[in-house]
Amino acid sequence: MSITAGQVICCKAAVAWEAGKPLVIEEVEVAPPQAMEVRLKILFTSLCHTDVYFWEAKGQTPLFPRIFGHEAGGIVESVGEGVTDLKPGDHVLPVFTGECKECRHCKSEESNMCDLLRINTDRGVMLNDGKSRFSIRGQPIYHFVGTSTFSEYTVVHVGCVAKINPAAPLDKVCVLSCGISTGLGATLNVAKPKIGSSVAIFGLGAVGLAAAEGARIAGASRIIGVDLNSNRFDEAKKFGVTEFVNPKDHDKPVQEVIAEMTNGGVDRSVECTGSINAMISAFECVHDGWGVAVLVGVPNKDDSFKTHPMNVLNEKTLKGTFFGNYKPRSDLPSVVEKFMNKELELEKFITHEVPFSEINKAFEYMLSGAGLRCIIRMGA
Amino acid sequence: MSITAGQVICCKAAVAWEAGKPLVIEEVEVAPPQAMEVRLKILFTSLCHTDVYFWEAKGQTPLFPRIFGHEAGGIVESVGEGVTDLKPGDHVLPVFTGECKECRHCKSEESNMCDLLRINTDRGVMLNDGKSRFSIRGQPIYHFVGTSTFSEYTVVHVGCVAKINPAAPLDKVCVLSCGISTGLGATLNVAKPKIGSSVAIFGLGAVGLAAAEGARIAGASRIIGVDLNSNRFDEAKKFGVTEFVNPKDHDKPVQEVIAEMTNGGVDRSVECTGSINAMISAFECVHDGWGVAVLVGVPNKDDSFKTHPMNVLNEKTLKGTFFGNYKPRSDLPSVVEKFMNKELELEKFITHEVPFSEINKAFEYMLSGAGLRCIIRMGA
Repeated sequence: MSITAGQVICCKAAVAWEAGKPLVIEEVEVAPPQAMEVRLKILFTSLCHTDVYFWEAKGQTPLFPRIFGHEAGGIVESVGEGVTDLKPGDHVLPVFTGECKECRHCKSEESNMCDLLRINTDRGVMLNDGKSRFSIRGQPIYHFVGTSTFSEYTVVHVGCVAKINPAAPLDKVCVLSCGISTGLGATLNVAKPKIGSSVAIFGLGAVGLAAAEGARIAGASRIIGVDLNSNRFDEAKKFGVTEFVNPKDHDKPVQEVIAEMTNGGVDRSVECTGSINAMISAFECVHDGWGVAVLVGVPNKDDSFKTHPMNVLNEKTLKGTFFGNYKPRSDLPSVVEKFMNKELELEKFITHEVPFSEINKAFEYMLSGAGLRCIIRMGA
Repeated sequence: MSITAGQVICCKAAVAWEAGKPLVIEEVEVAPPQAMEVRLKILFTSLCHTDVYFWEAKGQTPLFPRIFGHEAGGIVESVGEGVTDLKPGDHVLPVFTGECKECRHCKSEESNMCDLLRINTDRGVMLNDGKSRFSIRGQPIYHFVGTSTFSEYTVVHVGCVAKINPAAPLDKVCVLSCGISTGLGATLNVAKPKIGSSVAIFGLGAVGLAAAEGARIAGASRIIGVDLNSNRFDEAKKFGVTEFVNPKDHDKPVQEVIAEMTNGGVDRSVECTGSINAMISAFECVHDGWGVAVLVGVPNKDDSFKTHPMNVLNEKTLKGTFFGNYKPRSDLPSVVEKFMNKELELEKFITHEVPFSEINKAFEYMLSGAGLRCIIRMGA
C-alpha cells in the first residue's frame, strides 16, 4: 500500500478554466478512489484532437473548469473497494472508454461498446457518486471522458484501465490509449486486409497513419493515401503508404480516380477524416464483390451518409468502428506487445515532446497541424 | 450422345411477343449448343418476379420477342465444344448468373459476381457469337438472362449450369435456381446469425420467407417478420417467423418499434423488398456493436440510401448480396443436398402448379399476389 492511499493528494494539473483559453497549471486536490476506481500517477500523456475539440467547445455544451487529457501512461497509486485485478505499482494505460466485462457488449465477441463505460463526453463526474475527484480550494473541477490525464494524479474507473507489460516504455506506449489504437484496430480488426491486397486510407493524420501502419503490418501490397494536403505525403511513406491521391488534383470524384488506379476499386478502405464526403468516397471506392470500407472519423451531427443502394447490393460492405474494435482491458495489452516485439512502430508517431509546464505548446502544435503526437512529460 | 445432338430441335416455347401481353405457346427451333454451351431439356420451371418485371418492361428498354424463365430444373441433352464437366443425362439447374471459374470474382472466396457471366438483363443473345439460339421460321427470338427456361429446350452457357444430385426431384429443387437460394443465402452466407439470435426479415414474399427459412436453419430464436400486408403473417409462421410487425400499425418508424421489442435492436436483418425506406429501416433496426443488415431487394435506379453516419460508427454493418453469395456451380449442389437431407424445406414454397399450356395462369397468380411459387410442368 502506498503511503498516500486513502489520502487526498495535492499535485499539479493543467486546468481549462474556459473554452479555448490556455490551460493553467494549478495545484489540485485529488480525492482517493472510491469503489471500483483506481488512482493513477500519470507519467506521460499526449494530446489528441478530441481534447482540442472539447476544449474549443464549438457546438457542444461547454463544461468548465475541466481537466482534459485521455492518452496517457501511468502507474497505479492506490485502488478503491472491490478492485481486485489491479494493485499499486501496476503499469497501465487509462482509456476514454471502458470494459465492465458484465454487459452484453462486453460479453459479445463482436462489440467493444460497453453499456456502462462507453465514452461519455458530456459527463464531467465519476459514475460512483456523480461527483468529481478533483477540486481546487473546495471548487470541483470536472473530469473529461473519465480519464483527465493532464494531471499528475487522476482517478479512473477500473474498467477504463488496461494493465500492460511493465517493461514497456510509457513515454512511447502512452499513444496507444486512443488515436493510434483506433487507426490500427480499424485496419487489423475490422477491415482485415489480406496479404497482397490494396488499401485506401482517407486522411493522413495520426489516426490515418496508424490505419496505414495496420495495413503495412497486415501485408497489404498497395496502400493508397488520400489527403487534401500534399505535404503529408512524404511523411506518410514512413507508414507504408505507397501511392498518394490528392482529390484536389482531379476533376472527377476521388472514388473514380481510385477505381481507375486499381482495376475497379481497392480491396479495403479506411476513412479517418470524419468528412461526410470522404466517407461516401471511401465506401464507393472499394471493389464490388469483396470490398470493405471502414469508417473511423467522427461526423458532424447533421451529416447524412448517402449512396446508391446498388453500391451495397454489389456486395460492398460498410462497417464502422469505435476505438478500433479493441476492448480496452482485454485487448490493449496485446497491442503493447506488438510494439515490444517490433511488429508495430510507434516512434514515428511521436514528433514532439514538451515538459508539463509547457503543455500549451502541444495545443499550438496541433492547431498549426505540425507533427503527429506531442508527448507531455509530467513532473517536469 | 443423344440422337438430337448437333441437330436443330423443334419444340414448344412460351414466347412473349410484346410487353405485358400473354405469352403464346409456339413451335420454336433451338439451335445446337456452340463452344462452352449446353442444350438442356427443361422438365420444370417456375415463375419469379424478375420474369414478370422484364415482361412488363416498365422503365427498361423492351426487348421482344423474348423467351423468359430462369428458375428451372432439367437434363443435359447435348454439350458444345470445350464442355468437359457436363454430359448428356446430367441433372442440372440453369442459373441467371454464372461462374466462369477464371475471373477475379470467381477466384475470390468472397465474391460470386463473375465478370464474364454476371447477370445481364439487357443482353438477349449468347456470348459466343452474339446471336440467339431460338428462332421461329427464321426470326430470332431473344434469350432472357442466359436461361430462357420457358421452353422445352434451351441453350445455356456452361458456366450458368449447376450439376446436381440426380436423385433430387426436379419439380421441387427447380425453385433453387433463383429466389429461394437468394433469400436463404442472404441469411446463411452473409447475415450469419448465431444460434439463439434475433433476426428481422423485411418483406414476406418468397425471397423473404427463404431468408426466414435460413434464420430458422441457423437456429435464430426470434425471427421478426415485417410486411405491409398482415395477411402474410399466418403463412410466414411455417417458415419460422415468430413475431410480426406491420409498419402501418405504428406511428413511429419501424426501426424504433423493433428496437423497443429487442432491447436496442436485432442481431441481424435481411431486406427483401427493394423499397428504399425498408432498406434504411433494416439497417437502422440492428443493434449497435454487432448488428449486421443485409440488403437483397433490388432498388429503383433513382433511389438514395441515407442514414446518419453515426449509425455506422456505432459498429453496425451494412452488407449487400447478389444471389445469396452462392457461386452457382460450386455452391448450388450443396443447397440441393440441404433439401435432400431434410434440413431445408422446399415444399412449403410451392403453392401452385400448372401445365406448360397454362403458363399465363402462373403470371396471374403472381400479379394477384396469390401464393409463393407456381411450378410449370413442361411437356404438359
